[in-house]
Amino acid sequence: MAGSEFGRIIRISTWGESHGPAVGVTLDGFPAGMELSQEDIQVYLDRRKPGQSRIATQRKEEDRVEILSGVFEGKTTGTPIAMMIRNKDQHSADYANIMHTYRPGHADYTYDRKYGFRDYRGGGRSSARETAGRVAAGAVCAKLLSLMGVRLSFYTAAIGDVVISRQRFDPALIGRNATNMPDSVADQEALALIEELMQRKDSAGGVVEGRITGVPAGIGDPVFDRLDACLAKALMSIGAVKAVGIGDGMFAAYLNGSQNNDVFYADDDGIIRKKTNHAGGILGGISDGSDIIVSASIKPTPSIGREQETVTDGKENTLLTIQGRHDPVIVPRAVVVCECMCAITLLDAMLVNMSAKADSVIQFYKH
Amino acid sequence: MAGSEFGRIIRISTWGESHGPAVGVTLDGFPAGMELSQEDIQVYLDRRKPGQSRIATQRKEEDRVEILSGVFEGKTTGTPIAMMIRNKDQHSADYANIMHTYRPGHADYTYDRKYGFRDYRGGGRSSARETAGRVAAGAVCAKLLSLMGVRLSFYTAAIGDVVISRQRFDPALIGRNATNMPDSVADQEALALIEELMQRKDSAGGVVEGRITGVPAGIGDPVFDRLDACLAKALMSIGAVKAVGIGDGMFAAYLNGSQNNDVFYADDDGIIRKKTNHAGGILGGISDGSDIIVSASIKPTPSIGREQETVTDGKENTLLTIQGRHDPVIVPRAVVVCECMCAITLLDAMLVNMSAKADSVIQFYKH
Amino acid sequence: MAGSEFGRIIRISTWGESHGPAVGVTLDGFPAGMELSQEDIQVYLDRRKPGQSRIATQRKEEDRVEILSGVFEGKTTGTPIAMMIRNKDQHSADYANIMHTYRPGHADYTYDRKYGFRDYRGGGRSSARETAGRVAAGAVCAKLLSLMGVRLSFYTAAIGDVVISRQRFDPALIGRNATNMPDSVADQEALALIEELMQRKDSAGGVVEGRITGVPAGIGDPVFDRLDACLAKALMSIGAVKAVGIGDGMFAAYLNGSQNNDVFYADDDGIIRKKTNHAGGILGGISDGSDIIVSASIKPTPSIGREQETVTDGKENTLLTIQGRHDPVIVPRAVVVCECMCAITLLDAMLVNMSAKADSVIQFYKH
Amino acid sequence: MAGSEFGRIIRISTWGESHGPAVGVTLDGFPAGMELSQEDIQVYLDRRKPGQSRIATQRKEEDRVEILSGVFEGKTTGTPIAMMIRNKDQHSADYANIMHTYRPGHADYTYDRKYGFRDYRGGGRSSARETAGRVAAGAVCAKLLSLMGVRLSFYTAAIGDVVISRQRFDPALIGRNATNMPDSVADQEALALIEELMQRKDSAGGVVEGRITGVPAGIGDPVFDRLDACLAKALMSIGAVKAVGIGDGMFAAYLNGSQNNDVFYADDDGIIRKKTNHAGGILGGISDGSDIIVSASIKPTPSIGREQETVTDGKENTLLTIQGRHDPVIVPRAVVVCECMCAITLLDAMLVNMSAKADSVIQFYKH
Repeated sequence: MAGSEFGRIIRISTWGESHGPAVGVTLDGFPAGMELSQEDIQVYLDRRKPGQSRIATQRKEEDRVEILSGVFEGKTTGTPIAMMIRNKDQHSADYANIMHTYRPGHADYTYDRKYGFRDYRGGGRSSARETAGRVAAGAVCAKLLSLMGVRLSFYTAAIGDVVISRQRFDPALIGRNATNMPDSVADQEALALIEELMQRKDSAGGVVEGRITGVPAGIGDPVFDRLDACLAKALMSIGAVKAVGIGDGMFAAYLNGSQNNDVFYADDDGIIRKKTNHAGGILGGISDGSDIIVSASIKPTPSIGREQETVTDGKENTLLTIQGRHDPVIVPRAVVVCECMCAITLLDAMLVNMSAKADSVIQFYKH
Repeated sequence: MAGSEFGRIIRISTWGESHGPAVGVTLDGFPAGMELSQEDIQVYLDRRKPGQSRIATQRKEEDRVEILSGVFEGKTTGTPIAMMIRNKDQHSADYANIMHTYRPGHADYTYDRKYGFRDYRGGGRSSARETAGRVAAGAVCAKLLSLMGVRLSFYTAAIGDVVISRQRFDPALIGRNATNMPDSVADQEALALIEELMQRKDSAGGVVEGRITGVPAGIGDPVFDRLDACLAKALMSIGAVKAVGIGDGMFAAYLNGSQNNDVFYADDDGIIRKKTNHAGGILGGISDGSDIIVSASIKPTPSIGREQETVTDGKENTLLTIQGRHDPVIVPRAVVVCECMCAITLLDAMLVNMSAKADSVIQFYKH
Repeated sequence: MAGSEFGRIIRISTWGESHGPAVGVTLDGFPAGMELSQEDIQVYLDRRKPGQSRIATQRKEEDRVEILSGVFEGKTTGTPIAMMIRNKDQHSADYANIMHTYRPGHADYTYDRKYGFRDYRGGGRSSARETAGRVAAGAVCAKLLSLMGVRLSFYTAAIGDVVISRQRFDPALIGRNATNMPDSVADQEALALIEELMQRKDSAGGVVEGRITGVPAGIGDPVFDRLDACLAKALMSIGAVKAVGIGDGMFAAYLNGSQNNDVFYADDDGIIRKKTNHAGGILGGISDGSDIIVSASIKPTPSIGREQETVTDGKENTLLTIQGRHDPVIVPRAVVVCECMCAITLLDAMLVNMSAKADSVIQFYKH
Repeated sequence: MAGSEFGRIIRISTWGESHGPAVGVTLDGFPAGMELSQEDIQVYLDRRKPGQSRIATQRKEEDRVEILSGVFEGKTTGTPIAMMIRNKDQHSADYANIMHTYRPGHADYTYDRKYGFRDYRGGGRSSARETAGRVAAGAVCAKLLSLMGVRLSFYTAAIGDVVISRQRFDPALIGRNATNMPDSVADQEALALIEELMQRKDSAGGVVEGRITGVPAGIGDPVFDRLDACLAKALMSIGAVKAVGIGDGMFAAYLNGSQNNDVFYADDDGIIRKKTNHAGGILGGISDGSDIIVSASIKPTPSIGREQETVTDGKENTLLTIQGRHDPVIVPRAVVVCECMCAITLLDAMLVNMSAKADSVIQFYKH
């Protein structure tokens, strides 16, 4: 209950510190019999990996996943899938100067207040490295979703004030450039912005957007475990996320009802559809069969190269210059983390939903 | 697990439909020995009640809470506090025309798809009336928080495009006017907007903001049960909320690190503080001792008086005119719901936090 | 998390004190579309009701259940089913002498130590009256189980040292006599024992046994949520239960492996069966297709008429004579409580099991 | 939710198969700042290890625990403690003959029915090897309990029909002999019994008993999370356990109320005590300050050397002779597993209990 677990039928539980021996995740409740290889997972981990590009940290994380349990003869067994990623490139000495100093925008101070002390090496548990476990588990969930016809497509929608254009939107670019922006003009503008920030020893935030297609109507629970509420928690639990929106998100607040209401209609095949999708595919917390649209706003990387005022754990005001290389913007690498958290959330909701109707339950046990 | 429960040590569980006999809530895990009267709760329920003003529905809900258990001789007993609010002013007949027709922007269609049928009277379980139970439970939690020095102050920050001014912000106005806006100019502008919308049979959305003061540093858990993630779920689980932000929320995405990082310093009393509060009082998912700032963006009321295109459950395209009076904007009434959900979330996190340190645990059992 | 909730997909949450306004239960996660009437539930509550017989308390509990939510037009809606049973025959004055005195064998002292004070009227929350909510929820679950071909048959196996004979076992007697013993000889012997105990102002315990038929193989989860572990918790959570056994229970400890191992064989229809059922239908925490056999040992009623030594909350040694009439043996009334807890546990396990195989999940969403 | 997790504030989550790369556990929610070394854990794992004695399997498990996270500079950090034990002595080939054959008394058949296939090597997930993770987590919890003055003393109370004598009970023998029996006469008799069983290629069951001292009154929750209910689940979740008792356990059923009620009294120091302890230290699900007494009845080892009738997964009746060496009785090795599960359960209940009183909560946050 101390918060390292997520999900209901599907349960993930991550562990590990940035500079400990390894980080990992256990995925419990995953259905048996799905083919699964380390490569299925590695593809997702590689999307999280810092690239060769100038905009990401040069720390060489190999991030090779080891499957320790729950897979036998190439198939999931239904029992916990434990996965581990060894930590390699550790220069703990780099962190000596932050041992007693609180980095602005980081969790150093709050961990000390909560626990009395902290693993200060690389942020310890509060490091973004913890998300490797989420990505490993999300890759497994995304594979089953794809077998069920559900696809997740996540990308960078903004870096700083460079926002992608809906007109130039090109899904073929997703995952193909360093910014993860599906708009080649915005990609170039963002790269220029990042270059400039690096010279100024500063950083930028941005926005991740995601679209989930193929989700049938009827998924999600009323009240507290609404699909949108679960997605909001999933996304806001990622380190740097400061806001989450569904569909039009905060812009819905500025529309009138006559604009925001999506008109239902029956198409020529007698299928009920919506003419618009302001709601982002969720009504009353339950999917309506349209694409599910989410967004997550990500704060600028707090680790910046310039000197900053701060305080020590001895309550001395001081100046801090953070050593080492840090991503001037983490948004491109956060895309896969957002995608994976949504995959876990959605698969979980679809499994929970299997018992929504008494008739389905009775029918299931007649087989 | 079907989603009508919320919390960890504190657990609330709501039940009830808009036009059934009653709605209610059970609050389990609440500490024993706190004085509690029905009046403590009624004050909060009255804030949710539609007013006499023109901008809220005239349905006369008395909303008298009955405490059915968990309180003895005026004090909480530590056992579940069950509370019930009878439904009174029921005109089920009013809903005959939506029995087979899906209201745009409502959950009629998604409930039918999930469950195979629905209680169509007043939205049934998807009605905002469900939130009465949340408010009753939140009132109890807020009382204990106040005894611990924690205060919640929530208000309307925007109705449609009328946004409060930070310069004119007057906390004394909170809860004193029909819009719940702490800015008398914005209040008048919003009222004018609402009048206009009513004439056009349309509706508006808006934004609720909240500030929580007195929370010590160290509250919240790393990773999935981050305090901000829990608050995000709490707020997004409220019917019409489409976006949630912490601190600067989505605006953090547009700042640079050097702007967004809050500088720590030790004040003259040797207490560590922050010069700014872009983070909204939460770093790494754990409170930093600053005020906690949240916002929730609320979509426009989907029930509007004008004729709308839609479809029937028999897949016939049709036109629908929703009968009865409906709030042209629900934001002012949603304020107390947001506040109560945050109170529950925060108290829960503070109770969980009591076992964060081994020394505290050992000390506790030495008493 | 404070312990008034049970289950995973199916969640029940009980509330209420013996002498408060009512007791009740909320059943969340129940599948939609099952026909349900108050009468379905009343039948079970009546089995829990004190009878006209001399062996049960004369307190006239009408125990009429009110369904407050979750049922519409005679069918479950998928949303929480709230049920309430008003408390009627309250003579709080009777309890004045135990206000400050701890009854031996009761929870008066432990509640005071945990919570600082207690609702002393009739045991408050620790009263067996709390089980009315469990029975109401169990009745709903048992109905769905019966539609799935699963039947629960529970009965009294022993009262004091009067044990039913396997030779005389007559299932037709279950629920037909005051002792709930399916053996007319034992029934008469037990009645004689109870008469004698009443004259001596003493009480007896006994054993409840249950047999669940029609459960397919494959239900239950490995490790902590084993079906037997969940049943053990379900039964041990009933007030007076002091031991729980599965299959041969504690007698398994005295067998050799060659005796205790149940031989598998394929019958003429190619169905795998077991020649014996020492295991009680569960292997490795998962049902094996045989009948599930459970037993619960129940301590003698602690409220006895004779004078007892004890202590006051002011730490004075004293003598106590408990007023009023109390069941000299509660075993016959506990039968339906045990049955209902097992029904909830089993239905929950069957719903959880629907997502055990990836193929089933993919198939489910192809419909 | 698929059952590999246990606890509320303290959460353990085990993973791993008998013949996979490793088994492990993640312990989340453990308080920060307690000194912890691998040696603290190794001591407990060694108690689970098969000995040099003739009565335990000769498989040489080194069972060296690796702490992968959650400990920094020799102290717990408050974040998840991940621990792993590599599997070494794997002869998967030994299991070829059970690949398609269901061992009587094992979970082979039920896993196949639930999941469609299984890791047949050494029982896979259903192997007792899974308990290594429980022991590792339990060792950590037991250390904190000991710092709080709580001690757990578990031992073998019976092997087959050899039962320890209360007169000869010698606590100094606990953990000192191969049977784990605190009675040297019973120890010798049990060894003779085991020798005989080994010659007959048969096995025995037995009983584990435990006594927990130093638990303050007031621990545990009413209703479903009663301390006894949680202990029952904890113990019954261990593979071979078929019955669980609290205090007098099933023998309570045969006592009268006047015998079974424990008399309260105030001792000379004004402390409330009980003259007897039939209740096993728990009243109404809450500890009463007396020793907590539990027992677990363990079935005979199902793996026996003699030829057994059974069936294949192709539904052919067949004969099976299980290869390799197996413990003729697992009771002595199960003692530490029972102890560890109770340690986890009890520590969890004590942490939950910290928020039982409003005054304590308010006081806690005044520090």
